[in-house]
Amino acid sequence: MSVMSYFLRSPLSRSVVSGWHWRSAKAELQQPDSNGRVVLIGAGPGDPELLTVKAQRLLQQADVLLFDSLVSAELLAIAPRRCKKVFVGKRAGRHAMPQQDINQLLVKYGQQGGLVVRLKGGDPAIFGRIAEEAAALQQAGIAFAIVPGVTSACAASAYCGIPLTARGSATSVQFLTAQFADPAKQPDWSGYQYRTNGTNPTLVVYMGLNRLQQLCAGLASAGWPDHTPIALLDQVSTKQQQQLQGTLADISQRLAANPLCGPTLIVIGEVLHQRMTVDLSLLQTTAVA
Amino acid sequence: MSVMSYFLRSPLSRSVVSGWHWRSAKAELQQPDSNGRVVLIGAGPGDPELLTVKAQRLLQQADVLLFDSLVSAELLAIAPRRCKKVFVGKRAGRHAMPQQDINQLLVKYGQQGGLVVRLKGGDPAIFGRIAEEAAALQQAGIAFAIVPGVTSACAASAYCGIPLTARGSATSVQFLTAQFADPAKQPDWSGYQYRTNGTNPTLVVYMGLNRLQQLCAGLASAGWPDHTPIALLDQVSTKQQQQLQGTLADISQRLAANPLCGPTLIVIGEVLHQRMTVDLSLLQTTAVA
Repeated sequence: MSVMSYFLRSPLSRSVVSGWHWRSAKAELQQPDSNGRVVLIGAGPGDPELLTVKAQRLLQQADVLLFDSLVSAELLAIAPRRCKKVFVGKRAGRHAMPQQDINQLLVKYGQQGGLVVRLKGGDPAIFGRIAEEAAALQQAGIAFAIVPGVTSACAASAYCGIPLTARGSATSVQFLTAQFADPAKQPDWSGYQYRTNGTNPTLVVYMGLNRLQQLCAGLASAGWPDHTPIALLDQVSTKQQQQLQGTLADISQRLAANPLCGPTLIVIGEVLHQRMTVDLSLLQTTAVA
Repeated sequence: MSVMSYFLRSPLSRSVVSGWHWRSAKAELQQPDSNGRVVLIGAGPGDPELLTVKAQRLLQQADVLLFDSLVSAELLAIAPRRCKKVFVGKRAGRHAMPQQDINQLLVKYGQQGGLVVRLKGGDPAIFGRIAEEAAALQQAGIAFAIVPGVTSACAASAYCGIPLTARGSATSVQFLTAQFADPAKQPDWSGYQYRTNGTNPTLVVYMGLNRLQQLCAGLASAGWPDHTPIALLDQVSTKQQQQLQGTLADISQRLAANPLCGPTLIVIGEVLHQRMTVDLSLLQTTAVA
């Protein structure tokens, strides 16, 4: 990691990396042949059919599979029978495996050779804590790559008919989290000041359900009107998908009356007035034969 | 659309939509059986293997396919031979087909029956102008659904080794566009005020290459330091992928010396100091056999 940090801060890295071809990074690494390869894969939002073709192909070839709670049984079944499957997620009522332990497992299996797949819900770049796993692999000299996935916000849009951006009403969209390394920490709401000129981003909050009240209070403190629409989109793209819609003023009450299971995505903004009536039956595997 | 607008603004829609099952939306529509079905599909960022399994299945069943410039020949080849393929994108040197005309084509083919696939680069929710196409279909009473895709920002992260969020340095990520319905319009930079307390979002600009200078000037006017790192990520996830990295102060000069082809994604923020050395050869179809 330290060599990489040096390289990335050097004037060389700031200059053009032109014609950056597929094999160049591997050649630079010069990793020992005995090491395996690790692929960090985004499994998508829930519907197993939202896996990418690339992720499917790599899963079919996996020797070891490390997977999260968000990964469905249908996806695990894609891996071959010989594949060792290791659960590294959060069990009901128990804490998640510490990130440090996951990093160590990744390195351990990576050093054993073969293809190690680390399957994460959604997309690894969006609150996937990929930098920490990547740093551990780099430090151990293990080659790795990342397969992007469909992030929950995009799936929520598609399956609930909510455009995240829309000409005239939302020219940007911002993804934030309400969970920090320090559990007492809150987002800095001064950065989400409401603008009266209609240029507010659509806000999408990941992992925010258990902090809904603080979220609403925080946005109110930043000037967002009470009547701002807010939607809670639960288990998006699965057959258990549910939705709750309300306003910043009443959504906490609505949730209290109708508890959701999670994982739940929170969408806030004027785009909720432009919902589309999507026909989810068209997406079922049996719909178009 | 007007009936839906009424419904969505009514108190009923703000209340819980609990146990929202897959077939309910279709039952509500009561569309005539003679109409076809339209599926708006995100094709992903470029690498044909980043298509979802669901999109692949639907493409294989398409009767009509309307596609953009961003969609690759490999993806078009997935559609059956009998499928009518209609190009609705921007040709070099010519203007794109007006959105109004695309909407009309979608309705026309949708009314003819069968399965109409509208294939768009990236994800439809992120600057995909999906609300306009959906409104036209709803008005015509044609059932439609949306298949989310891998958005370019997630692919850029994976293929260039840039975490979009990272504990400690970026707790949010914001996607914005530099292209508006009114070509003279600029983003409202007052909404992107630089924060000295380290809570700035990672910024990802879609379709911003030909407005790079204004972008850098706009961020400078909002207090972003000259040395803020910025990366131009070109044709991400294809074999022609290229990258340029610099600072707000020098990136325009670097681009002038090394022109890029586009489409190009722009990433701005401290996460560029945390780049990971990904090994793209691991993602090739021939790499892991």
